[in-house]
Amino acid sequence: MWILRINATNLSYKLEEVPEKYKYLYGRALTSQMIYDEVPPLCHALGPNNKLVFSAGMVTGTVSPTSARISVGGKSPLTGGIKEANAGTAWGPDLAKMRIRALVLEGQPVDVKAYAGAVIKWDGEKPVVEFFNATEYTGKDVYDIYPDIFEKFGPKVSIASMGVVSEMGYSNSGIVFNDMHRRPSRYAGRGGLGAVMASKRMKFIILDAKGAPGVEMVDKALFDEGRKKLIDAIRSHPISKPKGGLNSYGTAVLVNILNEAGGLPTRNFSAGRFEGAAKTSGEAIFETNKERMGKEIYNHACSPGCIIQCSNTYYNPDQTEATSCIEYESTWSLGANLGIDNLDDIATMNQLCNAYGLDTIETGGTLGVAMEAGVLEFGDSKGAIQLIHEMGKGSPLGRTLSGGTGTTGKIYGVKRVPAVKGQGMPAYEPRAVKGIGITYATTTMGADHTAGYTICPEILGVSGKLDPLSPEGKAALSRAFQATTAFIDSSGHCLFIAFPILDIASGFEGMIQECNGILGTNWDADAIVAYGAQTLRVERAFNEAAGLSKESDRIPEFMKTEPLPPHNQVFDIPDAALDSVFEDM
Amino acid sequence: MWILRINATNLSYKLEEVPEKYKYLYGRALTSQMIYDEVPPLCHALGPNNKLVFSAGMVTGTVSPTSARISVGGKSPLTGGIKEANAGTAWGPDLAKMRIRALVLEGQPVDVKAYAGAVIKWDGEKPVVEFFNATEYTGKDVYDIYPDIFEKFGPKVSIASMGVVSEMGYSNSGIVFNDMHRRPSRYAGRGGLGAVMASKRMKFIILDAKGAPGVEMVDKALFDEGRKKLIDAIRSHPISKPKGGLNSYGTAVLVNILNEAGGLPTRNFSAGRFEGAAKTSGEAIFETNKERMGKEIYNHACSPGCIIQCSNTYYNPDQTEATSCIEYESTWSLGANLGIDNLDDIATMNQLCNAYGLDTIETGGTLGVAMEAGVLEFGDSKGAIQLIHEMGKGSPLGRTLSGGTGTTGKIYGVKRVPAVKGQGMPAYEPRAVKGIGITYATTTMGADHTAGYTICPEILGVSGKLDPLSPEGKAALSRAFQATTAFIDSSGHCLFIAFPILDIASGFEGMIQECNGILGTNWDADAIVAYGAQTLRVERAFNEAAGLSKESDRIPEFMKTEPLPPHNQVFDIPDAALDSVFEDM
Repeated sequence: MWILRINATNLSYKLEEVPEKYKYLYGRALTSQMIYDEVPPLCHALGPNNKLVFSAGMVTGTVSPTSARISVGGKSPLTGGIKEANAGTAWGPDLAKMRIRALVLEGQPVDVKAYAGAVIKWDGEKPVVEFFNATEYTGKDVYDIYPDIFEKFGPKVSIASMGVVSEMGYSNSGIVFNDMHRRPSRYAGRGGLGAVMASKRMKFIILDAKGAPGVEMVDKALFDEGRKKLIDAIRSHPISKPKGGLNSYGTAVLVNILNEAGGLPTRNFSAGRFEGAAKTSGEAIFETNKERMGKEIYNHACSPGCIIQCSNTYYNPDQTEATSCIEYESTWSLGANLGIDNLDDIATMNQLCNAYGLDTIETGGTLGVAMEAGVLEFGDSKGAIQLIHEMGKGSPLGRTLSGGTGTTGKIYGVKRVPAVKGQGMPAYEPRAVKGIGITYATTTMGADHTAGYTICPEILGVSGKLDPLSPEGKAALSRAFQATTAFIDSSGHCLFIAFPILDIASGFEGMIQECNGILGTNWDADAIVAYGAQTLRVERAFNEAAGLSKESDRIPEFMKTEPLPPHNQVFDIPDAALDSVFEDM
Repeated sequence: MWILRINATNLSYKLEEVPEKYKYLYGRALTSQMIYDEVPPLCHALGPNNKLVFSAGMVTGTVSPTSARISVGGKSPLTGGIKEANAGTAWGPDLAKMRIRALVLEGQPVDVKAYAGAVIKWDGEKPVVEFFNATEYTGKDVYDIYPDIFEKFGPKVSIASMGVVSEMGYSNSGIVFNDMHRRPSRYAGRGGLGAVMASKRMKFIILDAKGAPGVEMVDKALFDEGRKKLIDAIRSHPISKPKGGLNSYGTAVLVNILNEAGGLPTRNFSAGRFEGAAKTSGEAIFETNKERMGKEIYNHACSPGCIIQCSNTYYNPDQTEATSCIEYESTWSLGANLGIDNLDDIATMNQLCNAYGLDTIETGGTLGVAMEAGVLEFGDSKGAIQLIHEMGKGSPLGRTLSGGTGTTGKIYGVKRVPAVKGQGMPAYEPRAVKGIGITYATTTMGADHTAGYTICPEILGVSGKLDPLSPEGKAALSRAFQATTAFIDSSGHCLFIAFPILDIASGFEGMIQECNGILGTNWDADAIVAYGAQTLRVERAFNEAAGLSKESDRIPEFMKTEPLPPHNQVFDIPDAALDSVFEDM
């Protein structure tokens, strides 16, 4: 396997053998290690010394179920710390099939006006790279340019790109990959990595894996055994099974659940329950589609080999596609968080974010702060749509929102700013779900639910049931989830396999067997936690050297002083408990 | 003496005796200690838990020369760390004469629409406070409202206030005090303390010191002896004497000197020499005034008892006043830094900053970054004037610039951002004057020249002459200047007494004797350095608890990689040398 380095300074590339020290590092474990090894922690995130590292997971590119993830790492222009964002897309498997363990985009051209594209093909023995002038594709809606690229390079290529807001340097812009229907809709969205890609003046990285040899495997029988166990677990768990929660209602199935729990952040985190929640839920998406399309429509896979299939498509009254897909985080960030209950308007906003290249969570968080500042009223969905257009146009008003939730709070002098390390909080209220607050505070990523999804036991009853309002034992819980998650983000599985594998022991065993089968390792449950913890320690070391001290691992003051309805709780986890997450890692 | 606490939550106040632990703390030493003691380091700077502490210096309010300084302390919304900003104004002496050692503005009202004013008078035995509704004075040019306040409360009161940009929460807004001609022109400008005052909804703090008993003194003879020595030193040094450098040309006398040294930051710190520098210099101000007014005009005092008298007034062709005064930092930040050489336009911008409540240094730094981003062209003075109006109006475009130099850089994705801890750099280039770069990097204040003015030996030949381009010994130099400065900021003397007292030993002795005479202490030179160092340690401890680690004590990456013309030097001070400043404190 190779490390492929693309030098943006002069559009050259080279292949290197994977060094021994990276032998077992894949996905997030590798992107974070390479960023730690190669990027000066205090460099400017949009300067020549930052790098982007793309790496697929251990099992990505195989027939392992629900495992087509691609990790992207770099120094984040949003948080100033390390970032790994990942997405489900054929791009990940294609990279893995060409045996490119890591693709490193480095350097920076002097000419800031010209953008390039890179096409990576398999020449029979190794990957080769060709470059082309992509300047004509800048300044445009990514939905308008993807068809051209597929036409030019063939319908089976995979495309990584970013939108116009990345070209403008917005720190709330993501890197986009194609979904199974060639939509530019699968975002490695968080932390502004789109702006890093744009700062390299690289508009596209296109993978044409035709003829590629595929993923090597040490023990295929063991892999197959594990795969079967994992498939069985996924197919039997109520959340992940066919026509189960995710396949029927998508991730937006969580809206009603969190609202019931009083943990659905509403109107910029001023309440935990939204009177219009049901109208924005996964069930509402399902029912609206049923009414408009005249039949029940179950969800589809975002990427090859997914058997959970949680991606919805939301349809207009005229049966045309409005957007695909509306995730829980998006229907919340652009819905309850803004006091908006109009699903059609949420769909419009979601699609605009995708088209312009904006992270939906950060965009919603930013709009919430802007509403708090009085830029527009909570509930004004037409105004919110217009504000997203302003962001996409780069107008002065749009620019005020380009720095994300934390920076927008600073610019408008707002006191209620739901962000950690400058990154806006996702759709779970720390005052109502204490464990997730610990994850937000302490993860190396800035406020991020996926980094340690304690919602499983705190809300969903997965892997047991804990009282979400209790602070007891939550630091250890978050730590365990963070370490395990760092492993899953390296294995290449979608995080949603967590639901079945946490409840079904054979599924968990199957996931490990898959990895052992591919790598020839002999890992057990302890080993994968240790693997994840090592990744976290590396990320933490980068952040410390970048100036993020333990005082950065704190929940904003207002959550410690303002009780949140309906439970009227504050965030009461002591600082010492927050610090214990990494002290005990 | 008292500590006077004004509670903005309910417009009440109380007087407390000065506790023993604060016995010798005045000015910056006291504001920083009280912020450390009373403000949670991670509180929101514009929230109810931040405080503003006003304290005059040890000798302020006496007949000591050039000593009418007022320190204002708080947590900075710009840097997130501790802040002390000071100004020369009768307000300082008036506070001291009423024997108010510290005035603490704390709390926050629930009603965000109503602003109050406070009037502090002497009732024969103690200070008393009356409050009035000041809402009618909000949203206005401070030059329009000061005359009304003087009319209402008498021509001899002193007024602290802030401008419209503070009311909008801008983190580049200052607190303004009146000068000797009742102009609202003396700013404690840096770090956004104006926004903190506005967040308390306190529009004015007015001092009416009529009948106040004045400053107590333990040993008047010693004080008088010291005072005479200090006066003699000030009056004999070429920089500070009557019709000397400062009295003739103001602080802007530095323009040609720094330009000659290649250390005048030009066009957003892309060069160290500006072809239009001479047109923006103190000499140019002097000559323009002479031509327009038909006579030589020497400068005036900003505050009572100043014998240096460095404040200029700049006149229009029709002999009306354009602005007073144009400091070196302002003619640079709004001049060379923007590629602007039109003094009339610089004067207009300077006056607009004063009228709206903006820090001129931060405004110029911000505009420089905006020009780098292409918002307008370098040299476009009419466009720059318009941008300041946009800031004052709070338009979307103005809002993009409200977060100061660092935040504006983030919003526009700019790589060349001359800021430390988010605060814009003043008028000395770290690559051409290495010692001042160490001060910028390591001071607790964010980039700040006044915190350790190594320009004295590096450029001016005061207290010896050092090569500005050499890194040798500069960490120790900055440390010594920072500690001594922290003492001077506590004594109440203007920092400009540094020129005479560093060169004339009896002047230095005189300054210490003044303080010993007032306090009954027996300090020597070592004692005042120790006093200053203790203040710095307290500030540093606050900053660490606020999340500013040693990685915050760094010069921006571009200065370490881009050589600066004309010397083609980078900033080459090792991190270990930067760290040694506080390690050895």
